[in-house]
Amino acid sequence: MEPIVRDRLQVLRYNGEKLIEIEDQAAVEYPLTIHIDNEEFATVVCTPANLKELVIGFLASEGMIRNIGDISSFDIDEHQGFAYVELKVKQVISKEYYSKRMIGSCCGKSRQFYFYNDAKTAKTIMTRQKISAGQCLKLMEKMQKSSEEFQRTGGVHNAALCTEDELLFSYSDIGRHNALDKIFGYCIINNISLKDKIIVFSGRISSEIVLKVAKIGAGILISKSAPTTLGIDLAHDLGITAIGFARNNQLNIYTHPERIV
Amino acid sequence: MEPIVRDRLQVLRYNGEKLIEIEDQAAVEYPLTIHIDNEEFATVVCTPANLKELVIGFLASEGMIRNIGDISSFDIDEHQGFAYVELKVKQVISKEYYSKRMIGSCCGKSRQFYFYNDAKTAKTIMTRQKISAGQCLKLMEKMQKSSEEFQRTGGVHNAALCTEDELLFSYSDIGRHNALDKIFGYCIINNISLKDKIIVFSGRISSEIVLKVAKIGAGILISKSAPTTLGIDLAHDLGITAIGFARNNQLNIYTHPERIV
Repeated sequence: MEPIVRDRLQVLRYNGEKLIEIEDQAAVEYPLTIHIDNEEFATVVCTPANLKELVIGFLASEGMIRNIGDISSFDIDEHQGFAYVELKVKQVISKEYYSKRMIGSCCGKSRQFYFYNDAKTAKTIMTRQKISAGQCLKLMEKMQKSSEEFQRTGGVHNAALCTEDELLFSYSDIGRHNALDKIFGYCIINNISLKDKIIVFSGRISSEIVLKVAKIGAGILISKSAPTTLGIDLAHDLGITAIGFARNNQLNIYTHPERIV
Repeated sequence: MEPIVRDRLQVLRYNGEKLIEIEDQAAVEYPLTIHIDNEEFATVVCTPANLKELVIGFLASEGMIRNIGDISSFDIDEHQGFAYVELKVKQVISKEYYSKRMIGSCCGKSRQFYFYNDAKTAKTIMTRQKISAGQCLKLMEKMQKSSEEFQRTGGVHNAALCTEDELLFSYSDIGRHNALDKIFGYCIINNISLKDKIIVFSGRISSEIVLKVAKIGAGILISKSAPTTLGIDLAHDLGITAIGFARNNQLNIYTHPERIV
């Protein structure tokens, strides 16, 4: 298996005056192709760590499985970058529906945007969980501390699963979505309830991220970064408390502030 | 057409002491579904500006067209978010090949990773163009200045097409790839030669970005952010000078330093 950071990279640095030779490091980017029942399903470009969690979380997020019992066999060829999954109940992988766009016309305020598989998998979140702004900032601080990679290579996103006071575990990945999929996968493999859990995240609150959080089933999303309008609209509709720009002892609450005390 | 930033967003801000109501703004995220010859081809989530450039650049990047003459009709329904393209020579859109992974075994050093359509479209860059490190930093500064959106909403990526001394034009988008596709599209629509042009970019140098730059045909890529290992390997193989962390009067040259004087 490749390391997640390649060290001793030969780099020519311009330091403002002249070019000097230095040794640096970079985040490893690794393509993993997932086969379901011997058919190529998708290629995920990722950080090569926690690949089982990634694949299981990705399949759950795409609506292909609901729990670990849906999988009859699982193998990863790390050298070649292939994962082989067999499902208990064979599915016809309908590429027609898999990425077909669906536009709902039922909504008043926001313009809904889903793919069919999102509509099937994303749930509206009903949790009555509450958290204070101070707790949100502490969780973000804990996640930042837990991730050395991010500081070292500058190219990795982080996601953590938390309770109101504790960071339970966190994953890093060069792909924003992958870090969330690894969390989802870990919970599915270990049968961890996602009710009343909080997701802390380094990346932007876009529509895709909000849909993924809804699929995971968490009610509070705390991000260090900016939201997009569609991310905000979907968080509103799906019952997710979306918090952005959580840094420098400040944060913005975009949706469902009733969970913030 | 939606604006690219939604103003007067009602936000609850925690300022370190208490919650206050403020008005803020966020980057608009807009789904655009592209139909080719009446078949749904792809949905791109983007900033709703320069949609024609985006679609044309995306299709060129995906290997569906080579120049503007390959298109017989083009329409955009901005309200619904649909683009309708008809090609002069009808193609069977082979979804089999479109996203099938190909692993080359010919390379010595780096582990090649392409999709079939990438292998068809990405070119090895042969330009003998040269630029100084100081010029690179000045171009980055010009791009940063040209993009107010980025400062205002914190959620947008920028890409610019440049000569050694001048920024020719730049595009912003919430999607990193989209900003590059808009540049590609503009060049195709206006028949602008990409030989001896330089791409300046705010996002990470990942494999996908390097493949896109190779498809565009530029030989020098200057980024404000970190590279990934696969990005570096592909830049090496495709003949692209990859420059990262171009900020604070410094930069790193990862590949093909022969173009830096």
